Amino acid sequence: MAPPKQTVCIVGAGQSGLAALKESILQGMEPICYDLDSDIGGLWHKKETYENSNTASVWQSLVSNNSKYTMSFSDFPPNPRDPVFFSAQQLHDYLKKAVKHFGMEKYIHLNTKVVKVREAPDHDQTGKWEVYTCPSHVEVAEAQDLSQCKKETFDNVFICSGWYKKPYYPDIPGLKEFKGHISHSFTYSDPRPFDGKKVLVVGNKFSAAEVVTDVASLANETYLALGKGTWIVPRLLSGARIIDLAMHRNQIHSSDPEYEFNEFFMQEACGKMDHFESGVGCNENPSKSPWCISDDLPVKIASGKIKAYGHLTELKGSTAIFKEGESIQGLDAIIFCTGYRTELSFLDLKVHSDDGKMEMYMLAFPLNRKHNTLAVIGHYGTDGPMVVMGENQARLAASVMVGSRSLPSQKVMAQSVEFWNQSSSDRRPGYHNYMIPGFAFLDTMAVEGGFYPSFWKLMLRDPVLAWRTWYGPYLAAQYRLLGPGSQWEKAREICYTGYSEGLQCIRHADKKMVDRPDLRRRRKTRTVRLLGSSLIVVGIVVFRMWRKGEFSR
Amino acid sequence: MAPPKQTVCIVGAGQSGLAALKESILQGMEPICYDLDSDIGGLWHKKETYENSNTASVWQSLVSNNSKYTMSFSDFPPNPRDPVFFSAQQLHDYLKKAVKHFGMEKYIHLNTKVVKVREAPDHDQTGKWEVYTCPSHVEVAEAQDLSQCKKETFDNVFICSGWYKKPYYPDIPGLKEFKGHISHSFTYSDPRPFDGKKVLVVGNKFSAAEVVTDVASLANETYLALGKGTWIVPRLLSGARIIDLAMHRNQIHSSDPEYEFNEFFMQEACGKMDHFESGVGCNENPSKSPWCISDDLPVKIASGKIKAYGHLTELKGSTAIFKEGESIQGLDAIIFCTGYRTELSFLDLKVHSDDGKMEMYMLAFPLNRKHNTLAVIGHYGTDGPMVVMGENQARLAASVMVGSRSLPSQKVMAQSVEFWNQSSSDRRPGYHNYMIPGFAFLDTMAVEGGFYPSFWKLMLRDPVLAWRTWYGPYLAAQYRLLGPGSQWEKAREICYTGYSEGLQCIRHADKKMVDRPDLRRRRKTRTVRLLGSSLIVVGIVVFRMWRKGEFSR
Repeated sequence: MAPPKQTVCIVGAGQSGLAALKESILQGMEPICYDLDSDIGGLWHKKETYENSNTASVWQSLVSNNSKYTMSFSDFPPNPRDPVFFSAQQLHDYLKKAVKHFGMEKYIHLNTKVVKVREAPDHDQTGKWEVYTCPSHVEVAEAQDLSQCKKETFDNVFICSGWYKKPYYPDIPGLKEFKGHISHSFTYSDPRPFDGKKVLVVGNKFSAAEVVTDVASLANETYLALGKGTWIVPRLLSGARIIDLAMHRNQIHSSDPEYEFNEFFMQEACGKMDHFESGVGCNENPSKSPWCISDDLPVKIASGKIKAYGHLTELKGSTAIFKEGESIQGLDAIIFCTGYRTELSFLDLKVHSDDGKMEMYMLAFPLNRKHNTLAVIGHYGTDGPMVVMGENQARLAASVMVGSRSLPSQKVMAQSVEFWNQSSSDRRPGYHNYMIPGFAFLDTMAVEGGFYPSFWKLMLRDPVLAWRTWYGPYLAAQYRLLGPGSQWEKAREICYTGYSEGLQCIRHADKKMVDRPDLRRRRKTRTVRLLGSSLIVVGIVVFRMWRKGEFSR
Repeated sequence: MAPPKQTVCIVGAGQSGLAALKESILQGMEPICYDLDSDIGGLWHKKETYENSNTASVWQSLVSNNSKYTMSFSDFPPNPRDPVFFSAQQLHDYLKKAVKHFGMEKYIHLNTKVVKVREAPDHDQTGKWEVYTCPSHVEVAEAQDLSQCKKETFDNVFICSGWYKKPYYPDIPGLKEFKGHISHSFTYSDPRPFDGKKVLVVGNKFSAAEVVTDVASLANETYLALGKGTWIVPRLLSGARIIDLAMHRNQIHSSDPEYEFNEFFMQEACGKMDHFESGVGCNENPSKSPWCISDDLPVKIASGKIKAYGHLTELKGSTAIFKEGESIQGLDAIIFCTGYRTELSFLDLKVHSDDGKMEMYMLAFPLNRKHNTLAVIGHYGTDGPMVVMGENQARLAASVMVGSRSLPSQKVMAQSVEFWNQSSSDRRPGYHNYMIPGFAFLDTMAVEGGFYPSFWKLMLRDPVLAWRTWYGPYLAAQYRLLGPGSQWEKAREICYTGYSEGLQCIRHADKKMVDRPDLRRRRKTRTVRLLGSSLIVVGIVVFRMWRKGEFSR
């Protein structure tokens, strides 16, 4: 008789929760998944209102920063007809299709609030966890009042409740007395409320760039408080490359990836707009400073549709005052795109230190635990593709839970944790600002989980694929090529088609252009000219040698 | 006693009319300027409504395709604080400032309709013209009923009534029965009416690209019928160059400017998005096909916010049917961005042939006239900077009117006219599609007017300036450096400051980046490596020579 299946509770049915659910099923666990919301998708499910929401808003114009080739599960490729960059709606649709494809519906319980996750009384022996849930409409007065909740015990728990939980407002003197409308990107939906208004957007990262260009389409005057500046890179880079497919694995694993990253970013950002002369740039390397993604922010600044300012220091009535001495009068509204705070109070376990460092191996397993039966998925900020990142994390975690892989020693884990803490705090310090470099982290998880697409292993089976995996774009399906849970044939096909499809925008058009007869003619003329002039030079040299009698010696 | 000043009537107070007025004053004529509108600026004056307007709409998001360095008069530089690309409002403000600066107010009569311009009875002897005007609110029933109009006689007339006069709709079966809302970019104002709608934009040139990206900010679904395709170039080109400053004079005057133009355009367009693979491109060279300017159209297509289609062939109910076999159902609105028709019926003189060719020397002086006392300004489509183009044309024309320059023989003029007709019809045939290559035409007018910034003439006075004028961007002020009406000192200063200001966005940021210590260190390492490896190679060569005994011979 087979041993009974391990049970697992998954808290949240967003991108990370669904990844955890998928991996739990694939690796033979008996899962149950709870979500507060009335639909799956977490962040990507657009709600009616975000006023009292526990996820940040996806605004109407929102488009994923990473392409569909990385914002997808490794074993469930996007449709070739899908656009290169998913909108929130399309990503939500993709997740729904994945739910159907992997038969996940029956495990998902919506409209259910997880009130508390804590160690079961016999946790020390069994590693089990108690999970308290109640219907989403029930208000639990105090966190301790669990009597009206349903209690269940699970062998394992995945915490996938998300990262962007609460809006963060900076402490600016005069903010409370500001006469206009104050809001946050957390609740931002569309530009309509700012129609004809004079609007200041505060922020210098992803959401600020998105919101300010969106608002500028209807606002009368739009200002952007950039603080210490930012680096603006477009989604479509030079050479028609897609942003997340532009750096290849060999660069990420080079001897100095930070240098590669900085060179790449400065080149791309300044290739669109001189960040130094225009004043929008930050006086630090992109790896250590804010950056954002936008194709039209540079031209909107160049055309005065958006006016860039520096540090907002004070508000007086409806006037904004900047450190650099400038001021904007008669503001109607301020939108803070100043980041989010996260929230894990339902979990009876601390996962970060007081000085803001994460204390979880692979940002998933809390350190110094006797049993590794709880994993936190997707609890970090990143510039990388969240969907496959959550999947890799969940895949590794599930294999540890079912016992097919084991974690390294506490010492090794602590060293790894320290490395990523350092890597994040080099960029921005603090728990709430935790920012993980996506692609490097993806591969680290893959090494740990045994599904790393090693160049030499791939070389033995398919040299072209090895080359493309290392000198071509990152694609989610590359993590299904090798190791446990791999599907060589299927993943190989996705990698090949994804590569050519993805490269439709990457491949430089010059290759096609040489087919144009008029250019070919021109090139021919050039070649003739070059050959002609070379012949003349050679002729002169030979003539001079002959005159000197070199041939008669 | 000085001879009496020549009188001149200027029809229209838009960018061309103001240029003509300015040059008339500067060259000592007695001008009077009429405009139908309640304000100066023509096209650039945003009206309340465009339903019965005689100029095309400037929509709220409209930004000039050319930078302020060329969209300005040669002797009236834009403010350094102005944004690089003028919005319609800012260009209107600039024109108003110019009116004040040159003391033009007293000559301008607004709200006045020019009903007829025709030869005076003694035209054959004197070259004089009769101009009939009436207040703008008076409806003149028939063009012949001039009794209620005021009649004046002038020595000279400038026709500056504009080019974009009437919307043009293509003849599409089922258009009349289409159930949704039909409009034209001629009356387009902002995306609000399309909020939440399913919208099809028809067109593949400038206004289509602008309108479709604007509409997509609020529409629910946005489609673009591209016809035979287009070339999309951004306003900010690779290397952070400004579009109209990117091609220098030496390229325009190269042995094969068309080749230079095509190479440049394909490179820039495909550098953002592969026009062949993505299907938006046109299977002809950019010099012979539609093209448009947009920084965010490529990414909006890549993210599915705008879906690109081909030839619209038929409408059935609310369904659009395409030649390529696809269809879009349930359309709420169609916006035609399919160009404009022009109108000169008030002028008693035909300026184009029936087969669509212009019959005006420098597109200004009608051919085969005894007296060159009437000039048409700005009556053509162009990709170049209209403001300085109108100025150059008016400057040349005014100098002919006052007799300080004379026109070449009819034969030479006819040859020139034929050249530009050919140049335009190579791009698009027909009078209404007349499309003149801006920068080449600018210089041709300057040669004719004697104010061409010749490389060798400039070289003698200021070699750096000569170099910058020929291998740097076109700037309006370059036409005030030499020849009649030039202001060397002032223009030289504008050229220098304009060059550095304009190059803030053009200059490649690499220059600044080498100051970054970490990159410097890296470059040092690279240099050491390069030197080291060179030394090794030299060492091997020397060793082999020594082994062969080359040194002991």
